[in-house]
Amino acid sequence: MSIVRCHQSISLDGYTAGPNQSLENPIGQGGMSLHGWMFETAAWRRMQGMPPIPETPDSAIVEGIASPSNAGAYIMGRHMFDPNRGEWDESWKGWWGDNPPYHAPVFVLTHFPRQPLHMQGGTTFFFVTDGIESALRKAGEAAGDKDVHIAGGANTVRQTLRAGQLDELYLHIVPIVLGAGERLLDGVGALQFAPMTVVASPGVTHIKYRVDRQAAP
Amino acid sequence: MSIVRCHQSISLDGYTAGPNQSLENPIGQGGMSLHGWMFETAAWRRMQGMPPIPETPDSAIVEGIASPSNAGAYIMGRHMFDPNRGEWDESWKGWWGDNPPYHAPVFVLTHFPRQPLHMQGGTTFFFVTDGIESALRKAGEAAGDKDVHIAGGANTVRQTLRAGQLDELYLHIVPIVLGAGERLLDGVGALQFAPMTVVASPGVTHIKYRVDRQAAP
Repeated sequence: MSIVRCHQSISLDGYTAGPNQSLENPIGQGGMSLHGWMFETAAWRRMQGMPPIPETPDSAIVEGIASPSNAGAYIMGRHMFDPNRGEWDESWKGWWGDNPPYHAPVFVLTHFPRQPLHMQGGTTFFFVTDGIESALRKAGEAAGDKDVHIAGGANTVRQTLRAGQLDELYLHIVPIVLGAGERLLDGVGALQFAPMTVVASPGVTHIKYRVDRQAAP
Repeated sequence: MSIVRCHQSISLDGYTAGPNQSLENPIGQGGMSLHGWMFETAAWRRMQGMPPIPETPDSAIVEGIASPSNAGAYIMGRHMFDPNRGEWDESWKGWWGDNPPYHAPVFVLTHFPRQPLHMQGGTTFFFVTDGIESALRKAGEAAGDKDVHIAGGANTVRQTLRAGQLDELYLHIVPIVLGAGERLLDGVGALQFAPMTVVASPGVTHIKYRVDRQAAP
């Protein structure tokens, strides 16, 4: 069955990006410390062609994020595709080079129309100007029996939660207190989740939640 | 070795109490849903003299909270001891009856002086008017080689974190989004923790963190 899922690295105080996000530092001050655990894994080093290190639970998680077994389509916010705002600079084709790692349709939320962008390796970026519900519908149709992945950022995840359309939220809880920044779960209303899988590692706790969607008491 | 530790039930969006806290509802709207997991355990039912149910990982956690093996002294905020504010009504002796469950010195943070209150079973409430550092010093002396427990509430935990004196924070992460209320980790600055123990149950994820105390990058 097709479900809508997403991965997010999150601080203990609920931030998925640090304060003072900018063109130069899109994940904000201290935000990179939310992702450091990924770079220290065998899976990441393999993807970068670096010498191997031992496999760990974190490495298996990174493998699952980078190569989800059942991803039929992705949704991402404009800002995750393009650091600029406003009208499109058509020469910008994303951060990922000619062969992006998605190998599937990617629906980019934006206020500015743009023709689909066909890349190598099966990735096509579609630009959706009529909101998250439309993007979810289009991604669902494109994915068929496979899953729809919300690639990010936090605002797109929140829109999906508010639309009552997120089925699975996989949080990678990094044991730092950032103190400021962008909070993943602010403004989504009262929600009830259920933990499905918990993976503990020395540096991060990975909890896969099913979103139960009903309001908390 | 004596350390300073504390337990807190916390929502996925970081709240340890719901919004609109009042005399009638000191843990705020929806706040009770943070504690429901405790009432459904064999340990809790045993304490209440109710018929037994099977033991679970949650039950062992409740046992550890209710009867910590190495507790030499406790610190709590005025509001946890007494729902009223201002000058003391000396007839108020806490929520717990004549034989409170602490069986050790309890240091209550308050702005209003009061003579120590000797209860049955080894509990004495001492009222500390010169701040958290003083309470931590007095509790540390009273505890000797045993641990100091921060009983709560959230404000007292934050004061201890800001003083750089909390060694261990055991979070019981309840999979709900409250959306509003009192946040445990707001205003404590940038901190780095390390997960020591993770216990997964169907309803709650229990993570014991060591507080590393240095600022996050």
